[in-house]
Amino acid sequence: MAEYSIGVDLGGTNLRAAAIDRAGKILEKVSGATQLSAGREAVVADMVASIVKLREQCGADGLVGVGIGTPGFIIMEQGIITASPNLPGFENFPMRDEIERQLKAPVVLENDANAAALGEKWQGAGRDVEDLVLLTLGTGIGGGIICGGKVLHGFVGMAGELGHMTVIPGGNPCACGNNGCLEKHASATAVTCMAKMMGLGDDLSSEGVYKLAIAGNDKARVCFEMMGTALGIALANLVDVFNFPLYLLSGGMLPAWDLFAPPMFAETRRRSFVFRNTPTRIEKAILGNEAGLYGAAYLPIQAR
Amino acid sequence: MAEYSIGVDLGGTNLRAAAIDRAGKILEKVSGATQLSAGREAVVADMVASIVKLREQCGADGLVGVGIGTPGFIIMEQGIITASPNLPGFENFPMRDEIERQLKAPVVLENDANAAALGEKWQGAGRDVEDLVLLTLGTGIGGGIICGGKVLHGFVGMAGELGHMTVIPGGNPCACGNNGCLEKHASATAVTCMAKMMGLGDDLSSEGVYKLAIAGNDKARVCFEMMGTALGIALANLVDVFNFPLYLLSGGMLPAWDLFAPPMFAETRRRSFVFRNTPTRIEKAILGNEAGLYGAAYLPIQAR
Repeated sequence: MAEYSIGVDLGGTNLRAAAIDRAGKILEKVSGATQLSAGREAVVADMVASIVKLREQCGADGLVGVGIGTPGFIIMEQGIITASPNLPGFENFPMRDEIERQLKAPVVLENDANAAALGEKWQGAGRDVEDLVLLTLGTGIGGGIICGGKVLHGFVGMAGELGHMTVIPGGNPCACGNNGCLEKHASATAVTCMAKMMGLGDDLSSEGVYKLAIAGNDKARVCFEMMGTALGIALANLVDVFNFPLYLLSGGMLPAWDLFAPPMFAETRRRSFVFRNTPTRIEKAILGNEAGLYGAAYLPIQAR
Repeated sequence: MAEYSIGVDLGGTNLRAAAIDRAGKILEKVSGATQLSAGREAVVADMVASIVKLREQCGADGLVGVGIGTPGFIIMEQGIITASPNLPGFENFPMRDEIERQLKAPVVLENDANAAALGEKWQGAGRDVEDLVLLTLGTGIGGGIICGGKVLHGFVGMAGELGHMTVIPGGNPCACGNNGCLEKHASATAVTCMAKMMGLGDDLSSEGVYKLAIAGNDKARVCFEMMGTALGIALANLVDVFNFPLYLLSGGMLPAWDLFAPPMFAETRRRSFVFRNTPTRIEKAILGNEAGLYGAAYLPIQAR
């Protein structure tokens, strides 16, 4: 029987899982809504049911293990989520051990952005490198760092909190206690807030701002220029710190690439002599929202 | 015969070398001035003579190899220095191969701040960890990152350019093309420039500013507060990026610790929730200007 693993992407909105073989081929896939309102036990039961279904479809003998990508801060050693605004009720819940107990299979828990970075390294835009940084540009900004082919965790598991790098010391306030965090100047939320400040409307979505910009609205264009500039400051710092060959961007804001990428490249180029003097690549990730599934599935394969 | 290696610290002012055994004990040491005005060949000849002298004193049979720490950007694969303002005439010189040829012994070339970080990890303040970041606070600011016990090089060898992280996007201009680089806000040069802007005097050294601050001069104290604030922005970013257990500061500005450290800790604490929620340490390095010698000597031992 061919070996495979199961990757789970547990988000605040969707719960998805896939059985993926060692060559990176998706064998089976299930997805549904995350029933947060039904409580933690119901979400865990749904997750276990999805995994059991995939295991029955693909055969229990070939299962290497289960990887779960989830938002929030994960204490790797204990397999618990210490804080996750997107998954209320999961704080300090021993998720890894509980699911291992129910499944009787090895489980690896990982932050969702780290899992996405690992997925891009395994089967995506980072296949040809061992070192990369991924920034996920969505409602907030997440980060994942792959160093020597593996997720860089730091000593607790909190490495890669790139959305909270300070890019503008006197910038917008963040719930984390800082001000000027990257995600307050370059996320979908940041773009809609800037649009509001520009008087473009109180209820505009980031997609709405995008459409205005594409239609030639100068104020809307400025929002994406500001976003690109903030990204460029963060990327210049990351390039100077890591000198990695590849920096990837993904997430819901990626379709606006043509609007934010030119100022982003200009800012990175001006601020980083390492960028100017090495063939460093800043590119779009290619796996979309499947990256987390791939990365989660790769975790038990890599751990083995 | 006990095995040992020879570490060389080639600076713009001083040339020092030491034979150090595997346990980290300095067996013999030589030092002198770097004869830059006599030209590159003379400096290389002095370096080779120092190494040969140590090898004769300690016995050629026990020599594991030679490590050389030098300022500038080093292309690790080729063992060349591509640019080093402090060592004019050494650009693109195949230093490693030339010294290997003359010595007939294996040579490893490394950036001086990287070597100092490795020295602190081997025999200094970082002995109990595998991951640390070192910032050297001198005329400029250098950086070295130890990840999994080894120097993080990046794909060319330019990782750890921490003095050029942007801490204040609209800040002071830097010769690198950026503005607001950490080293333009937190180095000895930055402190003397701030003192000059405050009208404290045109020819004041950083030590002079320090003496004024200690004597109670408010303007001089503000210079060190600004330095601490800039360091705090950089450290908060590094803590959020790496989640390493230890961040070390060294260099000629270290004696001013009591002046810059309180605002530095306050800024790091406010800006980084990773710092607030983990037992992250920011401490003084302990090997002083011997760190580079230790780290250089450890390179051939580790490479073996």
